[in-house]
Amino acid sequence: MDIPGPINPPARLLMGPGPINVDPRVLRAMAAQLVGQYDPYMTATMNETAALYREVFATANAHTLIVDATARGAIEAAFVSLLEPGDRVVVPNFGRFGHLLVEIAQRCGAEVHAIDLEWGTVATYEQIADEMARVQPKMLASVHGDTSTTIAQPFDGLRELCDRYGSLLYADVTASLGGNVVDTDAWGIDVATAGLQKCLGGPPGSAPATFSERAVAAIDARRPDLIRSNYFDMAMIFDYWSDRRLNHHTEATTMLFGARECARVILEEGLTNCQGRHLLNGRAMLAGIEGLGLIPFGDIEHKMANVVGVHIPDGVDGDAVRETLLHDFGVEIGTAFGPLAGRIWRIGTMGYNARQDAVLITLAALEIVLRRHGARVLTGGGVDAAYEVYATA
Amino acid sequence: MDIPGPINPPARLLMGPGPINVDPRVLRAMAAQLVGQYDPYMTATMNETAALYREVFATANAHTLIVDATARGAIEAAFVSLLEPGDRVVVPNFGRFGHLLVEIAQRCGAEVHAIDLEWGTVATYEQIADEMARVQPKMLASVHGDTSTTIAQPFDGLRELCDRYGSLLYADVTASLGGNVVDTDAWGIDVATAGLQKCLGGPPGSAPATFSERAVAAIDARRPDLIRSNYFDMAMIFDYWSDRRLNHHTEATTMLFGARECARVILEEGLTNCQGRHLLNGRAMLAGIEGLGLIPFGDIEHKMANVVGVHIPDGVDGDAVRETLLHDFGVEIGTAFGPLAGRIWRIGTMGYNARQDAVLITLAALEIVLRRHGARVLTGGGVDAAYEVYATA
Repeated sequence: MDIPGPINPPARLLMGPGPINVDPRVLRAMAAQLVGQYDPYMTATMNETAALYREVFATANAHTLIVDATARGAIEAAFVSLLEPGDRVVVPNFGRFGHLLVEIAQRCGAEVHAIDLEWGTVATYEQIADEMARVQPKMLASVHGDTSTTIAQPFDGLRELCDRYGSLLYADVTASLGGNVVDTDAWGIDVATAGLQKCLGGPPGSAPATFSERAVAAIDARRPDLIRSNYFDMAMIFDYWSDRRLNHHTEATTMLFGARECARVILEEGLTNCQGRHLLNGRAMLAGIEGLGLIPFGDIEHKMANVVGVHIPDGVDGDAVRETLLHDFGVEIGTAFGPLAGRIWRIGTMGYNARQDAVLITLAALEIVLRRHGARVLTGGGVDAAYEVYATA
Repeated sequence: MDIPGPINPPARLLMGPGPINVDPRVLRAMAAQLVGQYDPYMTATMNETAALYREVFATANAHTLIVDATARGAIEAAFVSLLEPGDRVVVPNFGRFGHLLVEIAQRCGAEVHAIDLEWGTVATYEQIADEMARVQPKMLASVHGDTSTTIAQPFDGLRELCDRYGSLLYADVTASLGGNVVDTDAWGIDVATAGLQKCLGGPPGSAPATFSERAVAAIDARRPDLIRSNYFDMAMIFDYWSDRRLNHHTEATTMLFGARECARVILEEGLTNCQGRHLLNGRAMLAGIEGLGLIPFGDIEHKMANVVGVHIPDGVDGDAVRETLLHDFGVEIGTAFGPLAGRIWRIGTMGYNARQDAVLITLAALEIVLRRHGARVLTGGGVDAAYEVYATA
């Protein structure tokens, strides 16, 4: 065969809903040579990474670790380890990733009760409380921030609801962790799973996760051979990450190095500062979108800090705009799925790209491209509005 | 918290059964910045990677791709996608990874018939033929090279056996691919799965896999919602890797870049040359071990090219030797598991480390350390014997 040349990707500014550009510090960390699986340096690195993610998740959970899969894999690891066939689960379903939770729980054999919501909205406390009272589930599982709709579900009161019915509380914080407030312990979350490729500023393929003592006890209560997965058997993975170091899979060392550096970058900035930076740049992007005369999507009160939906103006071909942005300016913005396909774009400001220059470049390029595609936009309106947000920050 | 410093691993020469040192070209490829999931560069890279691994697997299978997990995850992806509860599976079980196949198949609900063999041996054709006749399984699943015993199972005649009973043939080639002859199509293997961290010279966390049309048809024949896993649902992963590009998980871009470079490195050398290099360096290591007066483990006729088991001499503390090697010389050799724990070391010569200098350094250091630990070894005998193999190659 003709062997293709070395990896040499074109320069892209990734301003979609993620993955986004990896922080160069993370790529440098991942360029480190390996050590062996039980090298003292390796086990120390695993322990350090667990400690770093306790800070990022705002938890004291001993069982905080990395699942060697993409974010979706960590959801499955949590569900397949916790749920036995027939277990009841309640899922507020307000976007594509809510649907994913439903689907994964169903594959585990669970009896899933979805609260189906219009995309762009969240479940009210009353909606969840009613369904919890009716179902009295083993687990309440919710996406926190769903990039498919750009909306985040409030977790207020969910712990008390779960306590009332003896339910576990699961949160998918893949798209929110690091860039939005996620207070695992304060919110009483039993299991939270994430991924590196959103606000954490890393590449996809590694999934930080944390489990409360209550969740660990629920997993331990099952005989291991009842867990339908070996790869995602959290009881075995806990043993591997514990001081017992019982061999399970071969830890994905390079991704571990990357995950560790993602957390270091965030904690050196300060978790609160990092969340604040996402909030600021998200506000600037939102203001810029409105400043161009475009209309943001969904319930803005519940918008995630790190992504905004934008209604595609009438008469404009959304995909053609994205293609021109990518081809001519090297700027990627996101398309949409399901009921929002063809109706909105999704523009992210997260991780390494939650920066003023990235926001201004995107707004400037979007203005030019929209005009070339026949849309009416306010000249300079996007950049001016964003500047104003930064000036008054 | 006190934030730990940047990743800065100690220099190690990894001469165990894997992971081994990553080829520096692969680390450089993985340092590339990301592009978006549906960027034309990304989809082209996925297609190129599939084409490269067709060559590495020696297959024409259209369905050749990367599973975003460690090698164990790809085994599970194949099994959970192919096996329905109650399906019969025959597994020659001659080491730790044979046991893993048994265990994963059982978690899928399969009825597993293991041919339990002494570690260090392989199953004879007759043993497999008898069990196949008795069980008439949906699948015959075998590890090819099992690093736990350093032994490789011959695949001669297995395709005809499978044809006789309408069985699928699965091979775990994690530890053999690239460094031993693995002729997927010529051997009639339906599904083969691997990992980067052995002879392919990459980091753990990404698993090349290939599926024959027969295997794809068997997966397609199942309704997707019967597959117990979403993450490892190969029907969905096939759609993602096909021109339809139906979104499944977020592809682990950095690991994909690494997997692509691993294959490029091998194919630029030439697959046959690469296998020959493993054979030569494996022979040199074996000769060196014997030249030191040590005794290799197991059925040498069926030894894998890339790893050798070494009986720990009487009166020598195997772990103390390994620790001195690691601490003083930066050289890692492997311990052993199960019935071989404390009885043998395992020394690898694979991927980037299948090199004369790595072999000679290891033998020289081993000689010195053994002597310091009170073992009787032949002075210079290891290095001399290895030199002789290279001189007559």
